[in-house]
Amino acid sequence: MDPARVVELPGLPRRVTVYEVGPRDGLQNESAVVPVEIKAGFVRRLVAAGLSTVELTSFVPPSWIPQLADASGLMDLLRDDLAKAGGRYPVLVPNARGLDRALEAGATEIAVFASATETFARRNLNRTVAASLEMFRPVVAGAGVPVRGYVSMCFGDPWEGAVPVGQVVGVAVALAEMGCAEISLGDTIGVATPGQVVELLAALDARGLPASRLAVHFHDTYGQALANTLVALQHGVTTVDASAGGLGGCPYAGSATGNLATEDLVWQLHGLGIETGVDLRLLVETSVWMAGHLGRPSPSRTVQAMNS
Amino acid sequence: MDPARVVELPGLPRRVTVYEVGPRDGLQNESAVVPVEIKAGFVRRLVAAGLSTVELTSFVPPSWIPQLADASGLMDLLRDDLAKAGGRYPVLVPNARGLDRALEAGATEIAVFASATETFARRNLNRTVAASLEMFRPVVAGAGVPVRGYVSMCFGDPWEGAVPVGQVVGVAVALAEMGCAEISLGDTIGVATPGQVVELLAALDARGLPASRLAVHFHDTYGQALANTLVALQHGVTTVDASAGGLGGCPYAGSATGNLATEDLVWQLHGLGIETGVDLRLLVETSVWMAGHLGRPSPSRTVQAMNS
Repeated sequence: MDPARVVELPGLPRRVTVYEVGPRDGLQNESAVVPVEIKAGFVRRLVAAGLSTVELTSFVPPSWIPQLADASGLMDLLRDDLAKAGGRYPVLVPNARGLDRALEAGATEIAVFASATETFARRNLNRTVAASLEMFRPVVAGAGVPVRGYVSMCFGDPWEGAVPVGQVVGVAVALAEMGCAEISLGDTIGVATPGQVVELLAALDARGLPASRLAVHFHDTYGQALANTLVALQHGVTTVDASAGGLGGCPYAGSATGNLATEDLVWQLHGLGIETGVDLRLLVETSVWMAGHLGRPSPSRTVQAMNS
Repeated sequence: MDPARVVELPGLPRRVTVYEVGPRDGLQNESAVVPVEIKAGFVRRLVAAGLSTVELTSFVPPSWIPQLADASGLMDLLRDDLAKAGGRYPVLVPNARGLDRALEAGATEIAVFASATETFARRNLNRTVAASLEMFRPVVAGAGVPVRGYVSMCFGDPWEGAVPVGQVVGVAVALAEMGCAEISLGDTIGVATPGQVVELLAALDARGLPASRLAVHFHDTYGQALANTLVALQHGVTTVDASAGGLGGCPYAGSATGNLATEDLVWQLHGLGIETGVDLRLLVETSVWMAGHLGRPSPSRTVQAMNS
């Protein structure tokens, strides 16, 4: 089947940067520990499929996330290929020690991961929101490479419920002021609907953070990710996070995290005539290949449809 | 977890009619034949969950669709309950003989199912598009009850590829002119993206079919249904077809039809402050109950999330 006709919609960008989080956010949330050679192959295939921005791994202490304990080894395997390919290949760092390890391994862009809620900050970073921002400050200042700041739990929190907009704005503005070039707004539990997205973007704009400095990071836990993406694009956002094959949580598992699948995103963007540089068929092949290594089918609707 | 905060978006309707197609479109596409008592229980639970518009069954010859061979028996079981509940309970009829059977069984609203493409008209109705419209004309004229007209393959066709807008408009206008009160635009293979939706609605409006007479019927085959729904609402549509639990095709089966799940739709609508009359928790319970009878989990993201 040929894809349906391309029809543009007024008010949308001509090009969107797909920020691929599968190797880091995806594999970090899979129970299986994937061998480092497979990870390197995964990244190479993603790059070959046209993804020019791929978050590679996380330099957290290996005891925290055993799935990503091979961060330095992965960078070694990929360094030459990625330098040749060009593009952005950020790595997550939780603190100053992580930054040192990341830079040592040759990272050219980093990301820090903040929380909009106290409960998740305590559970994920073992400190208050304020203390976590203080922990990030020297990391961002001393990075010497571009830094992306994540804000998680922007719309709802499993322990605190609905999250006040002001709380999210406070964390996002703090990250921007300490030097983060890009702020990614995460709907970590996937509860947001389009009105909330527009409300948050407007509140950030009013505080001096325009959509051009923002990325959106939606989860498909309740099937809302693409509608939320659409309104974000209508309001000026041009960077969208997604995970190849929807990696990062099987929909049939209790722990489903439901990352937006890159393929579902690309189907929408290409249908709207928005350039991404991605070859959708190569990307689907990559996700099917990765699903084989994980031993379960991809939860992405588009992967299922194009692979059936 | 409490659902996320309700935030309205300008330009959307205050209330949407959810047109539930699970008992007909859903069960017709399931391989299992469900006992009539279970079907009646399913409809009763849907009505109890607040769905006031439920398409019950189809009066096709039993040899065509064995899954729905019990249409008259189902109507007998439900007649008193539905009369008491109030609401709209259409049934599909393929031809004059089907209409007779439906009216005999007490149908108070019917629906006819046309195709925008020649190939699907031939495969589904064994005649040309023009001949199928001629077959429907006496059915619509003689019904004596409100008639809904479906147009299938509005955006793409598995055999013909992209479908020209003019072709869809021609069929929709013909159905409206012969007396269909409501026209449901079906993306039967789920390939549409929002630009196509807006283009078709504008073309229909220009030919005298305003959004107020239209319904949209999206499939989630490529994950696009809710984004498409959102732009349809932004352009005046207030009736949206959906299938409880996403019934009508398992995403892991080759024959996936991927009906938009009513739960995913309701999550979006309620998050936007749009009234539906639906009790989402009761609806999820109903879909979980039905999934038990079908022996497989619901493909709806919201059902999975709320039932985990």
